Amino acid sequence: MTMKVGYLGPQGSFTEAAAKAVMPDSERNSFPTIPSCMEAAAEHEVDAAVVPLENAIEGSVNMTLDHLIHKHELPITAEVTVPIEQHLLVHPDQEINLEQITDVYSHPQAIAQCHEFIRRELPNAAIHYTNSTSAAAQELQEHPEWRAAAVANLLAAETYELIPARKNIHDYGNNHTRFVLVSDLKNVLERKEAAKHKTTMVITLPSDYSGALHQVLSAFSWRKLNLTKIESRPMKTGIGNYFFVIDVEKEMDDVLLPGVIAEVEALGCGVRVLGSYPCLVSSETENTENKELSPK
Amino acid sequence: MTMKVGYLGPQGSFTEAAAKAVMPDSERNSFPTIPSCMEAAAEHEVDAAVVPLENAIEGSVNMTLDHLIHKHELPITAEVTVPIEQHLLVHPDQEINLEQITDVYSHPQAIAQCHEFIRRELPNAAIHYTNSTSAAAQELQEHPEWRAAAVANLLAAETYELIPARKNIHDYGNNHTRFVLVSDLKNVLERKEAAKHKTTMVITLPSDYSGALHQVLSAFSWRKLNLTKIESRPMKTGIGNYFFVIDVEKEMDDVLLPGVIAEVEALGCGVRVLGSYPCLVSSETENTENKELSPK
Repeated sequence: MTMKVGYLGPQGSFTEAAAKAVMPDSERNSFPTIPSCMEAAAEHEVDAAVVPLENAIEGSVNMTLDHLIHKHELPITAEVTVPIEQHLLVHPDQEINLEQITDVYSHPQAIAQCHEFIRRELPNAAIHYTNSTSAAAQELQEHPEWRAAAVANLLAAETYELIPARKNIHDYGNNHTRFVLVSDLKNVLERKEAAKHKTTMVITLPSDYSGALHQVLSAFSWRKLNLTKIESRPMKTGIGNYFFVIDVEKEMDDVLLPGVIAEVEALGCGVRVLGSYPCLVSSETENTENKELSPK
Repeated sequence: MTMKVGYLGPQGSFTEAAAKAVMPDSERNSFPTIPSCMEAAAEHEVDAAVVPLENAIEGSVNMTLDHLIHKHELPITAEVTVPIEQHLLVHPDQEINLEQITDVYSHPQAIAQCHEFIRRELPNAAIHYTNSTSAAAQELQEHPEWRAAAVANLLAAETYELIPARKNIHDYGNNHTRFVLVSDLKNVLERKEAAKHKTTMVITLPSDYSGALHQVLSAFSWRKLNLTKIESRPMKTGIGNYFFVIDVEKEMDDVLLPGVIAEVEALGCGVRVLGSYPCLVSSETENTENKELSPK
C-alpha cells in the first residue's frame, strides 16, 4: 500500500524536496500551513507529515516546535537536511543574458538570501514578492512573454518547466534547512540505517534561577554526550518562563539517556522526548527520486 | 532634528508597531527585507533600524542574527517586546456577523496562529494568503464590496480603516515578538531608563567537544548571572560547527561581565558582544504614539 505523506506546500517547495527525499515512493499531499499539515498526520488523513524545523524559507521553526510540544503527540521519526540552494530561473527559450532581465520574482526571504547577487548582477531589475519561491516559478511559467526571472530551487524549475540562468546565487554557502518527518505510525520509514542518530528532548526547568541550565547540562556532560543543539524557548504561560529543547547526538539506549532523564527529573525538571531518529541528508533538490539519500 | 528609523515593512506590520513604540517622534521608512533594512542603517541612510529577532511573523530570526553577526557592526541599542495579537478585521460599515464572511485574507503564519478560531468560527470561509498581515488589510480596504475579513493587528486596522469584528483570535495568549533597534549612532534612543537590561553575546566554541558549553556556562553560573536565552546556531562554515548566542540579564559593567569574557576567552572561545541595552515592552499595538512604553 502506498504511504501518504503531507508536506508544507506549495508544490516545488523545499519541504516537498525533503518529503520526496525521505519517502520517495509515497503519495505527496500539499498543505498550506504547518498546523494543517501536522493535524492531518495526527488525524491519520495522511500517514506522516514533513515540516521545516530550522532555518526554513517557507515556515517558522517556532510554529513546528510549538505544535510538537503543545498540540500533537507525533514523534519525530526522521530528520532530513536539505541544502538551501537558490537559482535564478528563466524560461527555457530565453537567452541567458542577465542584462535583459527586468523583473525578479520570489519570496522575500529568498530575495534576502540572494541580496548581494541581485545588488551586483541585477541592480536595475524590479523586485516582486510572492508567497513562496515556487509560487514565483509558477507565475513565470504562466507568463511566457515576460523577460523575468524567479529565485527558487531546482525542484521548482522542474515542476514549472524553467531552467537556471545562474546556479547557486545565495550569498552564503552551506545553508541547510532541517526538516522533520513526524508520524505516530510505525514503519512509515523504509530504510532507517544512518550514520548519525539524534534524540530530541524538551526540558522544563523548575524555576528561573541562575545556573539551573548549567546543572542540567552536567548530566549530559559527565556522560560525554554531545549536544548538537540547545535552544531556550518561552513557555506559553508568559514572558520569563523558559524551557529548553536539546538535541543529543545519540539514539535512545537502555543506559545513558535513561540515566540522564532520571537525574534531570530528580533535579525537579520536566523531561519529554520528542523523538529518537535517524538523520538523513538530501544531497540535491533535483530528481531526488533517482538519488540515494546519503547518511550523514 | 528628526531621527529616521527604518523598519521591516510593509506599513502596519508588527515591526512598524515596534518602531513606533521605541522611537515615537521619528520618521519611519519601510524596507522590504531584513538585509535591506539593516544595510540602510549601516550606510546611515537611516539613523537606526528595527527588525524582528524572535518569534516574528514577518521575518526570520535567523536572518537578523546572521546579519548582526556576519555583516554589520551595528550594536543592539534597545529591545522592544510587542504582543502578537491577531484580530479579525472587517469594513467599518459591515455588520459583525461571522456567518456572512465568505473569505479570510492573511499571511500564512497569521492564519496558522488563528487555526483553531478559524476552524471553529469560520469553517466554510475560503482562505487566501497574502505576503503580510497588513497586505491583507490593505487588500480589504481596496475592495469595499467584499464580505471578507483580514487577520491582522490594530495598527493595520488603523492604517487601512478597518474595525475588529473579533479581537484576540490567536490560539495562544502570551505570544510576544522581540524586536531590536540597531544603530551605530549614539543617542538614537531618547529615554534609556528601563527596569531590565540585557547583554547579548556570541560565543564560539574552540571545537565540537562534548561538555564545552557546560564549561562556558560555569563562568556565568558561579557569578549567579541569569541567562534569559541560549541558542546554538550553525556556523556558516558547514554543518556541525556551532556558536552560541547568550542573553544575560545584566547591563555591561566593569567587573562581572568583563570577568566572564576574560574566562571564556581563556578557555579558547571567541566572544563578541552584540549589545548591552534596555528592554522595553509595548503594551498595545494601537495608538502607541500616545502610550507610554512600560519598562519590563
